[in-house]
Amino acid sequence: MRRFNLAVSALLFLGTLSALAAQNPAQNAPTDRSREKQFDARLSAADIKARLERLSAHPHHVGSPYDKANAEFILSQYKAWGFEARIEEFSALFPTPKTRLLELLYPVKYTAVLKEPPLKEDKASGEVAAQLATYNAYSIDGDVTGDLVYLNYGILSDYDELDRMGIDVRGKIVITRYGGSWRGIKPKLAAEHGAIGCLIYSDPKDDGYYAGDPYPQGAWRNEFGVERGSVMDMPVYPGDPSTPFVGATPGAKHLPLGEIKVLTKIPVLPISYHDALPLLRSLTGPVAPDDWKGALPMTYHVGPGPAKVHLKLEFNWDLKPIYDVIALIKGSVYPDQWIIRGNHHDGWVNGAEDPLSGQAAIMEEGKALGGLAQSGWRPKRTIVYCAWDGEEPGLIGSTEWVETHADELRQKAVAYINSDSNGRGFIGVEGSHTLQHFINDVARDVLDPEKNISVWQRARAARLLAAPPEGKKDIRSEDDLKIGALGSGSDYTAFLQHIGIASLNIGYGGESEGGAYHSIYDSFDHYLRFGDPTFAYEVALAQTGGRAVMRLADAEILPFGFSDFAETVAGYLGQIKALTQNMREETLELDRELQDDVFTEVADPTKAFRPPKAQDPVPYLNFAPLENAVGTLRKCAEEYQKARQDMEGRGRMPAGEELPRLNEIIFRTERALTKPEGLKGRPWFIHEIYAPGLYTGYGVKTLPSIREAIELRQWDEADRQMIVVADTLEAYSREIRRATALLRSMLK
Amino acid sequence: MRRFNLAVSALLFLGTLSALAAQNPAQNAPTDRSREKQFDARLSAADIKARLERLSAHPHHVGSPYDKANAEFILSQYKAWGFEARIEEFSALFPTPKTRLLELLYPVKYTAVLKEPPLKEDKASGEVAAQLATYNAYSIDGDVTGDLVYLNYGILSDYDELDRMGIDVRGKIVITRYGGSWRGIKPKLAAEHGAIGCLIYSDPKDDGYYAGDPYPQGAWRNEFGVERGSVMDMPVYPGDPSTPFVGATPGAKHLPLGEIKVLTKIPVLPISYHDALPLLRSLTGPVAPDDWKGALPMTYHVGPGPAKVHLKLEFNWDLKPIYDVIALIKGSVYPDQWIIRGNHHDGWVNGAEDPLSGQAAIMEEGKALGGLAQSGWRPKRTIVYCAWDGEEPGLIGSTEWVETHADELRQKAVAYINSDSNGRGFIGVEGSHTLQHFINDVARDVLDPEKNISVWQRARAARLLAAPPEGKKDIRSEDDLKIGALGSGSDYTAFLQHIGIASLNIGYGGESEGGAYHSIYDSFDHYLRFGDPTFAYEVALAQTGGRAVMRLADAEILPFGFSDFAETVAGYLGQIKALTQNMREETLELDRELQDDVFTEVADPTKAFRPPKAQDPVPYLNFAPLENAVGTLRKCAEEYQKARQDMEGRGRMPAGEELPRLNEIIFRTERALTKPEGLKGRPWFIHEIYAPGLYTGYGVKTLPSIREAIELRQWDEADRQMIVVADTLEAYSREIRRATALLRSMLK
Repeated sequence: MRRFNLAVSALLFLGTLSALAAQNPAQNAPTDRSREKQFDARLSAADIKARLERLSAHPHHVGSPYDKANAEFILSQYKAWGFEARIEEFSALFPTPKTRLLELLYPVKYTAVLKEPPLKEDKASGEVAAQLATYNAYSIDGDVTGDLVYLNYGILSDYDELDRMGIDVRGKIVITRYGGSWRGIKPKLAAEHGAIGCLIYSDPKDDGYYAGDPYPQGAWRNEFGVERGSVMDMPVYPGDPSTPFVGATPGAKHLPLGEIKVLTKIPVLPISYHDALPLLRSLTGPVAPDDWKGALPMTYHVGPGPAKVHLKLEFNWDLKPIYDVIALIKGSVYPDQWIIRGNHHDGWVNGAEDPLSGQAAIMEEGKALGGLAQSGWRPKRTIVYCAWDGEEPGLIGSTEWVETHADELRQKAVAYINSDSNGRGFIGVEGSHTLQHFINDVARDVLDPEKNISVWQRARAARLLAAPPEGKKDIRSEDDLKIGALGSGSDYTAFLQHIGIASLNIGYGGESEGGAYHSIYDSFDHYLRFGDPTFAYEVALAQTGGRAVMRLADAEILPFGFSDFAETVAGYLGQIKALTQNMREETLELDRELQDDVFTEVADPTKAFRPPKAQDPVPYLNFAPLENAVGTLRKCAEEYQKARQDMEGRGRMPAGEELPRLNEIIFRTERALTKPEGLKGRPWFIHEIYAPGLYTGYGVKTLPSIREAIELRQWDEADRQMIVVADTLEAYSREIRRATALLRSMLK
Repeated sequence: MRRFNLAVSALLFLGTLSALAAQNPAQNAPTDRSREKQFDARLSAADIKARLERLSAHPHHVGSPYDKANAEFILSQYKAWGFEARIEEFSALFPTPKTRLLELLYPVKYTAVLKEPPLKEDKASGEVAAQLATYNAYSIDGDVTGDLVYLNYGILSDYDELDRMGIDVRGKIVITRYGGSWRGIKPKLAAEHGAIGCLIYSDPKDDGYYAGDPYPQGAWRNEFGVERGSVMDMPVYPGDPSTPFVGATPGAKHLPLGEIKVLTKIPVLPISYHDALPLLRSLTGPVAPDDWKGALPMTYHVGPGPAKVHLKLEFNWDLKPIYDVIALIKGSVYPDQWIIRGNHHDGWVNGAEDPLSGQAAIMEEGKALGGLAQSGWRPKRTIVYCAWDGEEPGLIGSTEWVETHADELRQKAVAYINSDSNGRGFIGVEGSHTLQHFINDVARDVLDPEKNISVWQRARAARLLAAPPEGKKDIRSEDDLKIGALGSGSDYTAFLQHIGIASLNIGYGGESEGGAYHSIYDSFDHYLRFGDPTFAYEVALAQTGGRAVMRLADAEILPFGFSDFAETVAGYLGQIKALTQNMREETLELDRELQDDVFTEVADPTKAFRPPKAQDPVPYLNFAPLENAVGTLRKCAEEYQKARQDMEGRGRMPAGEELPRLNEIIFRTERALTKPEGLKGRPWFIHEIYAPGLYTGYGVKTLPSIREAIELRQWDEADRQMIVVADTLEAYSREIRRATALLRSMLK
């Protein structure tokens, strides 16, 4: 669903990080290099290519015949490779378009095309009848007419800017462009501000000819290309909207439509820039601010009107079958400790890149692991490979599976490793910071297919070049590359944020060229030209995922590093302190400028203008509980580290019954970061360190209950949550201490 | 010629500045508020409007009948107002177009339009026969055919970027866009890098629909609009290219064409975005970097080719008459101390904004001052109002006049105050920092016509809003607004940089809308809609210029502030130290990255790529002489300040023969900042503090001989120049000390 964005994930996290964990080999998982060599020998670019071609041959969205066919194909493959495999079926609400009408009524008539034409250069694009039309899933039905307002990305700050122009969206239809946030935030905010309808178009600045030649000449979105996508309010809960908290199994009770809170409040439709141009051209009013301007050949005006628009949408609100493929190799020593690896298989149309580039590579891991197993290897822990359905509409397959098996997962899940789309370029990793050093070690052992260096070294070089001077210093002083935190946007969400299972999301990208995302042009033909033509990075992904799975499956002591986590949380604490201080200074400055009337003094009297609204002052918050908790955490992490080093120093691992107990304590630590009642207003999300932002969508908010309270200027709530999170971290530290004590006892 | 760019001039200079000078009322010129009131009462928006309409009625470029008619009209006006006025005529080389052919030969045929169509909404645009065609003056003749390369702004850093892509311009025709530097730099650099021809087009991102609706719907450049302009190598010397250093008076000897060094080395032509689009669309090769991309609806490729272009240019290389109008009111007490005020009158076509908006307002000053003189007022010093011809092709009228009268000016010129285009919005000031406090005081006494505050307060509010937090603190702590330094681009150049006359450039802008610059659409109709429709800022300019002239003319002791200058130079010294240190660190970092091979590790192997070139290390330079000289300067400035305060404390000004001597010392201090041999490679420019950049054109380089040596990595030269400038500043300080001693003696 979400493209792996190296630029963001690789470069965002450059705070301070102790090199302690990195320098300590004790955390390394045992690495059987000869087995990894055998694993590599079983990987075949040709097999991945053939698989990708097979899986992407026809549209395979939820409910389509080929979606089911793909699930059955995947099942048969895993079975053939010796896995115990089955399909788990769910039944979920998945609306499909019945009526889609968008008309410009005034000052000129225009009826939107709402169609992506087939291209002779792209075989898949011709299978028109089987394609899902362009729409946003979980928009409500609606028939609205109103003046149009252009609203940039439609994020919160855009409303402030709009207010400065003396314009509001009440009773109007807004047109926003893709980008700046996850798409579902746009209709959500528009509705909260009183708009009656929402359009989302792909501006060529963000997604089209600005980046490169449009398809089929080049890789990029052409004038008719439309980004489909879900607008379900996933930051509240993902999965089947009609069965929150419970699996949508055959007997499950489904909420009636009217009781579902995660549908949009207003109708919303995605359109191409071909369809957006006549609408935008018909706007007058203020010229848009520079950072609102796209690359269309026109002056961007904000409106409102005189453009008047009619939008009519009706959907088939049907339940559709969801086919998750679950395949496993049982662990020989610890069958109840699960290493889970997943990627979805459903696409919006042919979905060659999203998600099949990931799926085809992950299945190659399955093929190779199955082969190793058939030739005698047995993983100590159980390995579970999952091919999720229904990810595109709302992470449905993974969410329903996790909800169904929640109790068992709480007991048994060691880690979840996700992939989604994959391409040519640089490794990108996000995830639980307890696994940061572990995944760095994996990346150090995978060779970049284009350069004679490890993928780790290449990623480090890219970060180094992109970093400002201070960042370069940090990168050079650190032994590991920092990994990003997980928000939402792919199937790790339920594992990490609903259960508290340490998770990773891995993939390659940065060199392959985009522009087909969620369109009919995300095809095998497109991927072959612009994705990963030699399938070398598909092999690299399988090498990466396979190593991670094997090392976790066979580790004597699970390679969780608590110091990395402690330093990361310390960094987040630093961020929210700085955020508060910045808000305080900005508020004081704004207040002073309002007092001094400078906005009015500067404003052009020939233009509509309102000074910004005064803000309440920012009080000093009590960071002490959190500071203390982070102090405890650091200390406990260090003690654990020391005990591991001492164990390592003995030269051999202890056996005996303490080992499984120790490992259980270790992998369940992530559970200790959750609270049963969940986050405020969205109890489904229970992780206190990582969550998608309520107003960013996919984008992560770390320490979410505190950070969002501060951002929303809810100072008392922030102070309260500071204590809650501190208590959580203290409890987490106690779990680490338990592990340390057990380790120490084993050392005697 | 140059538009007054508030954003740049107002915000660039936010270094450290002592508030000492500002707090000291002793520097203030005596202000006769009742006379200033009488002056204001004589100003009429209606008169300015009528004058602007009259002056802009027909095209009036150099050599045109209406250029001469305007000069005669201006002369007659000043005479009518009681000035002693005359026309001084020169004869200067001014090429006009004979052949202009631009063809795309491959992959498709296209012949460029090279014409701006008349518009029914714009009366002036219809007078086609009298209009000067679109061209760049002082391009050489040429007939070249070659592959096209797109080169962004065509500035030095763009060549580095191009090299990284493995592309060069040898034997090719480059197409650059306007912006990023003065236009003359583009063909200069292109020729230095081996290109055979140069096109310069107006991209709508910089100058067109990106900013606002195109003319005539809105103010902005339409698809056919072309920016004419000079490409003479003015950073070497301005004025008539065939008579460097001497006035192009009737008997002057003119260099033959082949010996003139300031013509371009390759043919160059400006074109519209209508004409650029087919050319740019025909390029393939690498996609341009993001900051090279404009707002045309296409993917920007760099080439080279396959686009093949034919450019043929021939010019009439004629001498044309230049008519400067010089009008004066003789000083009653110090007739040999001149306050000079100027603005040009020639335009590229109708030039309503550039330059007539300034000229019409300045003439209003003349009208009012003449009126005051006729009703009894006599300025103590001589007031000289100048209307320059030939500014557009190369500051010809002012330069030839200054060269002709150089000796007399060295003796008598107190200050030169320039204006050029004027518009609605905020006051902008650049100039000699000895006049910083003086002009701040003037601005404090002019009321903003849109707000009930002074133009000073409004400018301060604008700076405050635009400044980053540190900058806000500086602005609040300082009593004066800092003024920018002068580079080139208007008629102050010869006064300041060839003679060493303290100069100011003043104007209003920031709210009026542009897009007609140097096109046939710079018309009265355009100015009336988008410039200053009520002519209120035209009146404000006259109030500002009039006050400055009257206060300087009547000051007992000339209001030069040396502490402001000392603090400004100290700021420049800080800048070049920081520049050197940054270059040192960047060079070390680059070297390390090259050693570590990170560029190659990161580069996409499917794309052409070269790592950046290694740089020689940056040695530590000897800043000590300059540090010491600045120390002396600060001390001398402070002592002078103290003496002025003591004088002020006495409550009355001294009379006697010392006073004229004191004032002569004061105004000639600026001469002490020059060196007779001039700057390296361009002896015409003799000011050691302010100069246009050799590779920026209009843009100023302060401490030019040091700064440019550092930028060009000529370390020994930088060390040498450091001593030269230090000596100059020591000599300057001695002049201040002389003034202080004289003041002290008068106090006895």
